[in-house]
Amino acid sequence: MSLDQLLLALLVIWVSARAFGEIAERMNQPAVLGELVAGVVVGTGFLGWIDPHDEVLHLLAEMGVLILLFEIGLEMRLPDLLRVGGAATLVALTGVVLPVAAGYALATAWGATPVAAVFLGATLAATSVGVTARVLRDLGRLASTEARVILGAAVIDDVLGLVLLTLVTRVLAGEPLSALVALRIVTIAVAFLVAALLIGRRLAPPALRLAARLHGRGGLIAAAAVTVCAFAFVAGQAGSAAILGAFAAGLVFAETDRRADIERDVRPIAYLFVPIFFVVVGAQVDLRAFNPLAPGGWRLLGGVLAVLAVAIATKWAAGLAPFWLHGIRRNVVGVGMVPRGEVGLIFAQVGRSTGLLDARQFSALVLIVMGTTFVAPLLLRRLLPPDRDALARPDDTPRTGPVERLVAGTS
Amino acid sequence: MSLDQLLLALLVIWVSARAFGEIAERMNQPAVLGELVAGVVVGTGFLGWIDPHDEVLHLLAEMGVLILLFEIGLEMRLPDLLRVGGAATLVALTGVVLPVAAGYALATAWGATPVAAVFLGATLAATSVGVTARVLRDLGRLASTEARVILGAAVIDDVLGLVLLTLVTRVLAGEPLSALVALRIVTIAVAFLVAALLIGRRLAPPALRLAARLHGRGGLIAAAAVTVCAFAFVAGQAGSAAILGAFAAGLVFAETDRRADIERDVRPIAYLFVPIFFVVVGAQVDLRAFNPLAPGGWRLLGGVLAVLAVAIATKWAAGLAPFWLHGIRRNVVGVGMVPRGEVGLIFAQVGRSTGLLDARQFSALVLIVMGTTFVAPLLLRRLLPPDRDALARPDDTPRTGPVERLVAGTS
Repeated sequence: MSLDQLLLALLVIWVSARAFGEIAERMNQPAVLGELVAGVVVGTGFLGWIDPHDEVLHLLAEMGVLILLFEIGLEMRLPDLLRVGGAATLVALTGVVLPVAAGYALATAWGATPVAAVFLGATLAATSVGVTARVLRDLGRLASTEARVILGAAVIDDVLGLVLLTLVTRVLAGEPLSALVALRIVTIAVAFLVAALLIGRRLAPPALRLAARLHGRGGLIAAAAVTVCAFAFVAGQAGSAAILGAFAAGLVFAETDRRADIERDVRPIAYLFVPIFFVVVGAQVDLRAFNPLAPGGWRLLGGVLAVLAVAIATKWAAGLAPFWLHGIRRNVVGVGMVPRGEVGLIFAQVGRSTGLLDARQFSALVLIVMGTTFVAPLLLRRLLPPDRDALARPDDTPRTGPVERLVAGTS
Repeated sequence: MSLDQLLLALLVIWVSARAFGEIAERMNQPAVLGELVAGVVVGTGFLGWIDPHDEVLHLLAEMGVLILLFEIGLEMRLPDLLRVGGAATLVALTGVVLPVAAGYALATAWGATPVAAVFLGATLAATSVGVTARVLRDLGRLASTEARVILGAAVIDDVLGLVLLTLVTRVLAGEPLSALVALRIVTIAVAFLVAALLIGRRLAPPALRLAARLHGRGGLIAAAAVTVCAFAFVAGQAGSAAILGAFAAGLVFAETDRRADIERDVRPIAYLFVPIFFVVVGAQVDLRAFNPLAPGGWRLLGGVLAVLAVAIATKWAAGLAPFWLHGIRRNVVGVGMVPRGEVGLIFAQVGRSTGLLDARQFSALVLIVMGTTFVAPLLLRRLLPPDRDALARPDDTPRTGPVERLVAGTS
């Protein structure tokens, strides 16, 4: 790839992501949905302007995911996470077990191999923090009990999703799928997270003090970048997922007193790199596979709708799980858990690049993720009327609670 | 290149650039010198930890140069540039003509082809704004007449250098070197600059207003990134250099009321990308070529020293050119013009990647650029005592003049 080709590809990616992201936002949909559509339009199946299989674009997209996971980690606070109530934990666990089980059953019934079946189930597991939080903020409902349960559960979900991804990746790399292997991999992921957090918590403050004492400028962002690369590399070498490392790096810096400064520096980098990932993922979707007139087209389309229904129903059911909670709309919690986002797309991406999914199956999975993201805001708006009082408050009211912090960095 | 390899390469680049940059700054040398040394150490000739010829690293380095040139353009203001006195213009022109002529003569005397001879001369032409400005600031001498002449001339120099680079690149691409071709290419470069500035000045304010009205966030940095890519691509297609496009994009945004915001957003990106370029350039230097005991080693070392002497003497002489100026230290102006920096290294890079320079000649040119950057601060400190009064002023005094603005963004 020459510099000219890279410049053109970046132009196409950034302009289309902005344009479709803006259209999505004006239609009260999350921008990420627009970026995926942008990818579908400029990618393989339609205009063919960018080649999503190019090595350089792929690496830039992977850097985009690492930056996104670092940002998400940076938005979270371990103490708040640990303080999240039993309701959020139960919703999260139910919201992982049900989709994985249902997806596994469905795929096995269709004759998929066990690995592929686990993979499908895992893709349906991870809730997107960004989409739900964004919709709740737009409705002025961020301070509600429903919102706190949803966001707490979504956070736990994301971590479980990353562990699942590691598990599936290792199995794809050739390890047999057995309870022992699963246990070992979950142990490695959890041990890596705990070790990274314990070591990181000790090393981050002196490292940041050192960065502040450097004569050279930009020490803060350099320290963050080096930590992300180091953690991501070590996570990969330890047999876990690189994104888990980036997430851990974010958690570590979230507890330092420079968190706000790091967030400010990372944001413009994320604005440029994160959309590359979503456009590249969308660009691999080939809508021609879903032509109902083509042989097998109807069957594939029917499969997509069936899995989409399972994806919605299982998360909805998870919302009903904390039966002891009265006075909250448990329907709202369930619908709030429906949107799958970044982690689900990362799953699909891994499945495609390891060859487990063919082009059709990959396109179907991305469409399912897009479908959940599309449906949830519509349902949420029906179930939960906007809070006019909260919306009338000026936008610059300081937001300092954990939920507000969760939302502040989602794009 | 896998993600793991990229993460490792970035780790090596960022950690070594920071470490050697810090050492350089503590030795009162510019950080860029440290980053080049970092490249020499981790690169081909020494540790061999990074492969500077890798396609992905090369593209990242080229993105780094584009960002650097955009930043430099952003720091400049056209009205100030146009107001720069005759002295600066004369110093700049003399400072381009003398090194090109001397370099050409020297290379031809050694039996080089005309193209290679022009190339050597052109590499010696471009003064580095960043290094000199940095040293003058460290001496508290930014407000002196000498400083204003030096910085004004360095700016004109950089533009002339970019035009020269375009000329040389076209000749390398196969066009015969003739006065007519030279005239055409200079005309294209100037026409591109003028057209980009005229069109950009009209389009930038409405484009920025549009970006501010977007619902999506990060519209400002996206607008800047898209403009840089578009200008760089068009400049390349028009037969000029991509970096001229990035520079023009910076000049355009420098005149808008969002300049400070764009600078703030670009800075963290520049902190990460710009050092990649200098480390990759340094990594291609193979010091083993200068082993005095090897056959031809003495000759090469002698050649380096001879060209270095010419590089210093010609710029020094240029400083003496504005003979009508009394009461200023013209020696200081000359020495201040000595350091070659970014543009000189871009020349060397182009010469290497087009195959005009072999590995030895490339290493020699980088060493010469490094030599000028190393010598100038030492000489300047001898000729110009520090201004204790200016240095005693608190560092947060607002600096709003053009010279101070020039310095604020150099790293």
